Amino acid sequence: MNASPLWLDFRPRPDLPLWTRRVTGEVTSPQGKAALRELRQGFAALGAEAAGDGPCLRLREEPGEGEGWRLSAEKDGPVLSGPGRGLVYGAFALLRKLALGEAPVPGEEAPRYPLRMLDHWDNADGSIERGYAGNSFFFREGRPVCGGRTREYARLLASVGLNGCCLNNVNVTGEALYLLTGKYDGELRAIGEALAEYGVSLWLSVSFAAPLEQGGLPTADPLDPAVRRWWRETCDRLFRAVPDLGGFLVKADSEGRPGPQSYGRTQAEGANMLAEAVKPHGGRILWRCFVYDCTQDWRDLKTDRARAQYDTFAPLDGQFADNVLLQAKNGPVDFQVREPVSPLLVRLEHTKSIVEFQLAQEYTGQQKHVCWLGAAMKEVLDFTGPAGTVKDRLSAVCAVSNTGDDFNWTGHDLAAANLYTFGRLCWDPDLDAEVTAREWTRLTYGPDPLVEATVTDILLRSREVYEQYTVPLGIGWMCDPPTHYGPSPEGFEYDRWGTYHRATCREIGVERGPAGTGYSEQYGPALGAVYGNMDTCPEELLLFFHRLPYDYRMRDGRTLLQRIYDDHFEGCAAAEAMAKAWDALEGRVRSDAFRRVQVRFREQVRSAREWRDVVNSWLYRLTLIPDEKGRKLYL
Amino acid sequence: MNASPLWLDFRPRPDLPLWTRRVTGEVTSPQGKAALRELRQGFAALGAEAAGDGPCLRLREEPGEGEGWRLSAEKDGPVLSGPGRGLVYGAFALLRKLALGEAPVPGEEAPRYPLRMLDHWDNADGSIERGYAGNSFFFREGRPVCGGRTREYARLLASVGLNGCCLNNVNVTGEALYLLTGKYDGELRAIGEALAEYGVSLWLSVSFAAPLEQGGLPTADPLDPAVRRWWRETCDRLFRAVPDLGGFLVKADSEGRPGPQSYGRTQAEGANMLAEAVKPHGGRILWRCFVYDCTQDWRDLKTDRARAQYDTFAPLDGQFADNVLLQAKNGPVDFQVREPVSPLLVRLEHTKSIVEFQLAQEYTGQQKHVCWLGAAMKEVLDFTGPAGTVKDRLSAVCAVSNTGDDFNWTGHDLAAANLYTFGRLCWDPDLDAEVTAREWTRLTYGPDPLVEATVTDILLRSREVYEQYTVPLGIGWMCDPPTHYGPSPEGFEYDRWGTYHRATCREIGVERGPAGTGYSEQYGPALGAVYGNMDTCPEELLLFFHRLPYDYRMRDGRTLLQRIYDDHFEGCAAAEAMAKAWDALEGRVRSDAFRRVQVRFREQVRSAREWRDVVNSWLYRLTLIPDEKGRKLYL
Repeated sequence: MNASPLWLDFRPRPDLPLWTRRVTGEVTSPQGKAALRELRQGFAALGAEAAGDGPCLRLREEPGEGEGWRLSAEKDGPVLSGPGRGLVYGAFALLRKLALGEAPVPGEEAPRYPLRMLDHWDNADGSIERGYAGNSFFFREGRPVCGGRTREYARLLASVGLNGCCLNNVNVTGEALYLLTGKYDGELRAIGEALAEYGVSLWLSVSFAAPLEQGGLPTADPLDPAVRRWWRETCDRLFRAVPDLGGFLVKADSEGRPGPQSYGRTQAEGANMLAEAVKPHGGRILWRCFVYDCTQDWRDLKTDRARAQYDTFAPLDGQFADNVLLQAKNGPVDFQVREPVSPLLVRLEHTKSIVEFQLAQEYTGQQKHVCWLGAAMKEVLDFTGPAGTVKDRLSAVCAVSNTGDDFNWTGHDLAAANLYTFGRLCWDPDLDAEVTAREWTRLTYGPDPLVEATVTDILLRSREVYEQYTVPLGIGWMCDPPTHYGPSPEGFEYDRWGTYHRATCREIGVERGPAGTGYSEQYGPALGAVYGNMDTCPEELLLFFHRLPYDYRMRDGRTLLQRIYDDHFEGCAAAEAMAKAWDALEGRVRSDAFRRVQVRFREQVRSAREWRDVVNSWLYRLTLIPDEKGRKLYL
Repeated sequence: MNASPLWLDFRPRPDLPLWTRRVTGEVTSPQGKAALRELRQGFAALGAEAAGDGPCLRLREEPGEGEGWRLSAEKDGPVLSGPGRGLVYGAFALLRKLALGEAPVPGEEAPRYPLRMLDHWDNADGSIERGYAGNSFFFREGRPVCGGRTREYARLLASVGLNGCCLNNVNVTGEALYLLTGKYDGELRAIGEALAEYGVSLWLSVSFAAPLEQGGLPTADPLDPAVRRWWRETCDRLFRAVPDLGGFLVKADSEGRPGPQSYGRTQAEGANMLAEAVKPHGGRILWRCFVYDCTQDWRDLKTDRARAQYDTFAPLDGQFADNVLLQAKNGPVDFQVREPVSPLLVRLEHTKSIVEFQLAQEYTGQQKHVCWLGAAMKEVLDFTGPAGTVKDRLSAVCAVSNTGDDFNWTGHDLAAANLYTFGRLCWDPDLDAEVTAREWTRLTYGPDPLVEATVTDILLRSREVYEQYTVPLGIGWMCDPPTHYGPSPEGFEYDRWGTYHRATCREIGVERGPAGTGYSEQYGPALGAVYGNMDTCPEELLLFFHRLPYDYRMRDGRTLLQRIYDDHFEGCAAAEAMAKAWDALEGRVRSDAFRRVQVRFREQVRSAREWRDVVNSWLYRLTLIPDEKGRKLYL
């Protein structure tokens, strides 16, 4: 298997404790055995010489399905105890500590959320929707495959604390429609077992129309008894055949996908019907909230896509079965580089929620640009709305994976930091995201202080830099419609996606305050008042919430237009500086890894210049107001 | 074969001359036999009862390869005489006359140009680049096929006077690269024979890199002796194997295609090398002039794509071998609904030219909109430049075909009128194009006067209507970049294609007069002065040649902006009226044909409204100047 070990590429350390020479203990579960193996291999890679006696680390496996672990100092040396799954996480935590050169201290940990997962948008034909790191390693030529990467991927997930993985695209098409039907039970079981060895459960995306399309029934109405029976029987067979199945992820009534709306049923009626079918098997339903009108007439000024999800789901709060989790994207629209937090995440009172991040950098540079999303994820988790803080209200966390079968898994080497940070934050959302960026850098590139400082600095600044040279102040879109890569300021303007800025020669943006679409009011009175008023709205979201003239004065006295010009010039210069800083690491980073990143930086700089010049020139043409500093704009 | 007979669907006529009951004469060539068969079948379809004696039409085949025919009244009845090819054209001319209810009169005809051809952009996999009428009938699954449509297509071509057909896309890829190599000689010979029966010669598009890619040579340098030998030997074999081959069509140094530029050679050196190879076989080279920089930086204000073809080819005038024809598109850019005539067509003095029209409605509604191009073609043929009139200077005429394997051949039933008119104008460019539109209508729909009046009126107005609701005053583009269908006013603005309008809130267009890129000067002093001055420039080309403020006064006193608003409202209303006029033909046109066109009109009206509202709203947002008549614009 030609794949990078990523952050598990342990290097010899000079300062290992003596007990790393020997690991003992009775482990019985597959996970316990995996923990033991990882520790022995890991300690050896860290430079520990195996010893037959003397100090040792003892594993003590406890019964149960829990995920916590405890490291205690007993008189004969340290003891790592916990159920099998906990031991896996404990083992990787210990290895991480040692690899970072930190002394393990007694204590215990358990994950904050019981479900911490990655969603793959992998298609059965092996392609990946919005994938930027090669092809699928779960599917090839129409079939699921359990290949060399499956177990390796499970290791990577477990090593950062993740425990779930949805194999297939939420847009279920082609052979993926038959994953439910028994046709691929053998393959799924094999994948499930490989994942389960590291405590990772397998999930499937399913089509709401399956009873109709695969089951041969005349309807997929969730209240139809035959439909309910079909789902129950399908689940009875499937969960027996694939014991490690966690449940289903469902994109219903969204962008042309089938759903309960077709039968006049609510989202709750749809989700609960599936929940009932998986419940006897301990399964759960992840029901996506990405429901909006994707055939909007651009002439329609009243419909506001940002409102759609809350308007659809808030009235149903309390109506969902207890094994349904509503899966809301982090923002109300669609993974733009800057959006407010989805009101669903702070307003639902009686419904379990799972937030969906997107590590696949669909709108954030497609893994050709560096864009570390750790701070962005942390902003969402730490966000406090009327009913509390997001991280305290969530039942689970997931993200669209950024992986594929590229050697480095994530296309851009530095994109692996997103996978790493995501896992660490799922385990403990109170972590300082910046610390995880530093951890990842040291684990990946070793202890060189210049490398650590440079790479960490690049990661920490990268999202703001990307935001500066691309889409200003939360306005979103402005990218090329089919690819979502590169600038096209008017690309979505007359299209059906509900994503408009309606720029004229005087003003830009959609008014979402109380005088506009009223979207700001979805946050409740207090927060709604902050967002709804342009003077109190956070500046980075100003054009998400407000339609403003170009001469609007920002808090620092600059005009809105000048601020946008400045951001683009500064962001682009910062991208150039990051590329240069990387160049200075030549000889300090392994040459293949150095070159891979260097090539990506060249493309990032090219693309950043294009973004800068296109967005600025477009605004210049609209307004004919020159840059105050006389920098070049193009007529 | 499930294909419409198009205009060859003869209906019984009440007024047939008696001699249509019997056709006699000695014919020996395949073409002479085809003529005899067509006459007998055609007369029968027109209602003539076969008779064993009595008045008759006599065919008199003469030797030779000529294409003229003569109808003379001898004492025993009419005689149609000419070589075999001429008899085919004479036969179809006679049938047309009779089908139209006109009395055939003695006389003779010969085509104006020796080569009158259709270029197919068919790919070996069966797809058609910019095809809007289904898939290829020349290729299926990577192979050329001689199927039921081949002969039928040759009939249709011959019936309107065409005599050449290039089978494959000028962008030669995939298996089409092997058409040269002997791999498909059998298939090509079969197709060639089927076409030749109706006097149609077969042509192939070839890749200039063939010696390198298929021949295994280290270069394709046209001055390399081994390359020259490879082409000679390849042609010796190919022309023997495919006796009806006319020659090659070549897209070189164009949009990424290989060409002589790669070896520092001129277009003439490239073309002449191929000309030498085909010359022993009577072959000719059609060398496309579509050479321009397709990776232009949009920031570059100096490069003007409109200049590129003339700048490249004019200095080479006189250097091309006598069996090379330079193939220039009708306009200097790329088949936009309105362009000036290419200066290559009126300035080259010592080089043979073939003009290329595009029946495939890439930029003119993709055979979902009616856009009859007869008048547009006629404008080009009748255009007079410093060295004479285009139609008098041409050596040949060709067009990109609008056909495919759809039942009706052309996607839109009314698009067949473009094929018909094109053939008729190739035969005789002095014909009144409007008369051909009327002919086509009567041949297609029969003698109903309301149908004739309605359809002819639709055809005659259709191009101006399309122009009105789409792209104003020759400015071009503004369509969706990948598909070239539907509006996207800024879609090409920051791209690499050299197709910009550079609209600001005050002005729009590229200045191509002497103060600008100087393109107007390519027409010579007199015509250049007309185009180069905004006050004398034809208004329909105003924005092709000039950059103007929105308040520029048109000759009728309206502002430029108001003219554009008006055109869009009027053009869209006219499209709606055309659709309504068609609806009124229900019951008068065969119901399947009626419905096919009705469905297309619905799409045309939808799309016309979109064009109207997008272009107008885009200009309104740019300027905030409302429509003087208060019609709806969208912010």
